[in-house]
Amino acid sequence: MKTIGYAARDAHSPLAPFHFERRALRDEDVAIEILYCGVCHSDLHQSRNDWSEWGATLYPCVPGHEAIGRVVQVGKAVTRHQVGDAVAVGTIVDSCHHCDQCHRGEEQMCREFPTLTYNGRDRIDGSQTYGGYSKHIVTREDFVLRIPDGLDLSRAGPLLCAGITVYSPLRQWNVGPGSRVGVIGIGGLGHLAVRFAAGLGASVTVITRTADKAAQAHELGAEHVLVSTSEEAMAAAVSSFDVIIDTIPVAHDVTPYVGLLDVEGALVIVGALGDMGNFNSLPLILGRRRITGSPSGGIAQTQEMLDFCARKNILPECEIIAMDGINEAFERMERGDVRYRFVIDMATLALA
Amino acid sequence: MKTIGYAARDAHSPLAPFHFERRALRDEDVAIEILYCGVCHSDLHQSRNDWSEWGATLYPCVPGHEAIGRVVQVGKAVTRHQVGDAVAVGTIVDSCHHCDQCHRGEEQMCREFPTLTYNGRDRIDGSQTYGGYSKHIVTREDFVLRIPDGLDLSRAGPLLCAGITVYSPLRQWNVGPGSRVGVIGIGGLGHLAVRFAAGLGASVTVITRTADKAAQAHELGAEHVLVSTSEEAMAAAVSSFDVIIDTIPVAHDVTPYVGLLDVEGALVIVGALGDMGNFNSLPLILGRRRITGSPSGGIAQTQEMLDFCARKNILPECEIIAMDGINEAFERMERGDVRYRFVIDMATLALA
Repeated sequence: MKTIGYAARDAHSPLAPFHFERRALRDEDVAIEILYCGVCHSDLHQSRNDWSEWGATLYPCVPGHEAIGRVVQVGKAVTRHQVGDAVAVGTIVDSCHHCDQCHRGEEQMCREFPTLTYNGRDRIDGSQTYGGYSKHIVTREDFVLRIPDGLDLSRAGPLLCAGITVYSPLRQWNVGPGSRVGVIGIGGLGHLAVRFAAGLGASVTVITRTADKAAQAHELGAEHVLVSTSEEAMAAAVSSFDVIIDTIPVAHDVTPYVGLLDVEGALVIVGALGDMGNFNSLPLILGRRRITGSPSGGIAQTQEMLDFCARKNILPECEIIAMDGINEAFERMERGDVRYRFVIDMATLALA
Repeated sequence: MKTIGYAARDAHSPLAPFHFERRALRDEDVAIEILYCGVCHSDLHQSRNDWSEWGATLYPCVPGHEAIGRVVQVGKAVTRHQVGDAVAVGTIVDSCHHCDQCHRGEEQMCREFPTLTYNGRDRIDGSQTYGGYSKHIVTREDFVLRIPDGLDLSRAGPLLCAGITVYSPLRQWNVGPGSRVGVIGIGGLGHLAVRFAAGLGASVTVITRTADKAAQAHELGAEHVLVSTSEEAMAAAVSSFDVIIDTIPVAHDVTPYVGLLDVEGALVIVGALGDMGNFNSLPLILGRRRITGSPSGGIAQTQEMLDFCARKNILPECEIIAMDGINEAFERMERGDVRYRFVIDMATLALA
């Protein structure tokens, strides 16, 4: 199947149109016409080969792992999706299917490493995977999510990466009515964490460096705002959270936040990858507090999240852009100039 | 009640004999003749005021929170203990009794802070508490543990602090048959962690810097030894532990150990207090691994541990010393020259 996407040709060039072939449908594949694709910070990092220490970027690189579209063709063995269905493809498109993590529905932690939606290698023919910055994608039906009726297709994309990244730890740490949840940072991940935690019935506090975020925080569903630069406010908030979702995207000292956790509470890092600097064991020891992290979620939980979003009418705040606006969007994203997530309207990319 | 102990008079003097009064029995008190008292590293730190940043040492300081003895007198309302019973007093002798932590049996995490066995203040009369380096102690019956029949009184002392400090996290993280437990360091805490984890049915690996600890490790009940200075061995052990008990007593980089945890595994710090240096978020995020700590255990769990030790015939390795050998023992402890724990024989301290 001929299609078109936007690709980085190397680490330094802007993304540009790229004509390529999607594979012929295998029995268990569906072909999807992509209508919208969210723009994730990792798209920028991967395009620019920023993660070379963990594996070089494969070029040309078609980013995008927050794709929303409609099924246009199905393989002979497909049972879960039909032509015309609204569907989504997230960060992974395959896994080994036989390890303990796959068996318990945590395919994102597959022992053989899952096949990434882009910058991966197909498990059958070894070909390079290309992501959602394209008109079409062909992929295994069991890694394709159903978009429930009523969920706005133009805004659902960011749920597939930003969304599940914060939804999964909220569920793992049993957030519900009565839970006291802190969210550090309100960007792409943080604003969804606030909406999800509130939707799950928790009391939510946005933890932010500046008081001017208060109005935004309350609009998103937060009950409280904790200004982390106020020593007084931080001291008053010691031991007052069950779970804190830490979305700060760069290395930072977690010690002041760890002390905010109550006994056996968890600070879940979802933003900053790599060396974080010092931590102090004392609040961990005295209160059995935990520092942990979370890596996206499995397919079943991603579906659960989409269904939850439809039921609760939760969606990310998005700015819709044209495909040829992607390079400017990357630049704005680097400056933090987006509230809160870009989504590419794929109707702006013509195949011809 | 007149008694005698050994006390530090200030941060720089050796411990020396100290005559003092134990309080008259209240209705719920028992008086205990102390037969043995374990020597904990914290006794040394507290005597020398090493923890002044968290509160100055009260002098004279009679250390000791691993006391074993026999009940010699009971208050009018005492129901749990009788004259002649073998009993123990651990790190705490009272708590608020009405907070959530006390209610769930985690008195060591009492919201009002528990009353420490020494260097504390009695909750009723405000008097300073004196510890187990003494012939007698008078304390509330509900903070007094029963020593089950058959447990060697001369070796039970270190269970009360070193023991419960490692037993509690093993229980919290559900260690049992099938669990893969790593123990970093085999000193006072570590050697008990190995025995407990093995006694709970786990497969235990001692993680140590030098291969010459292998024989000791196996004697203690470890199945495997992992030499942490071997890059090859460490690489082969990635993702292979459910729980790692980290007993290293000084600040250290936990990153190499965190990677040894399997998905959702926990590194439990019980040795090093304070700033630990850098950690890396990547293994936390990719495998939902946890860095945590643990602060002793509650009274009910301490009793459970003593009963478990009697049933499984688990005891610490001890070197019995005379009371007047305490200053030399402190010096040897500082050099790491003890296998694995000192216990003072209180028969060597005469009241007259």
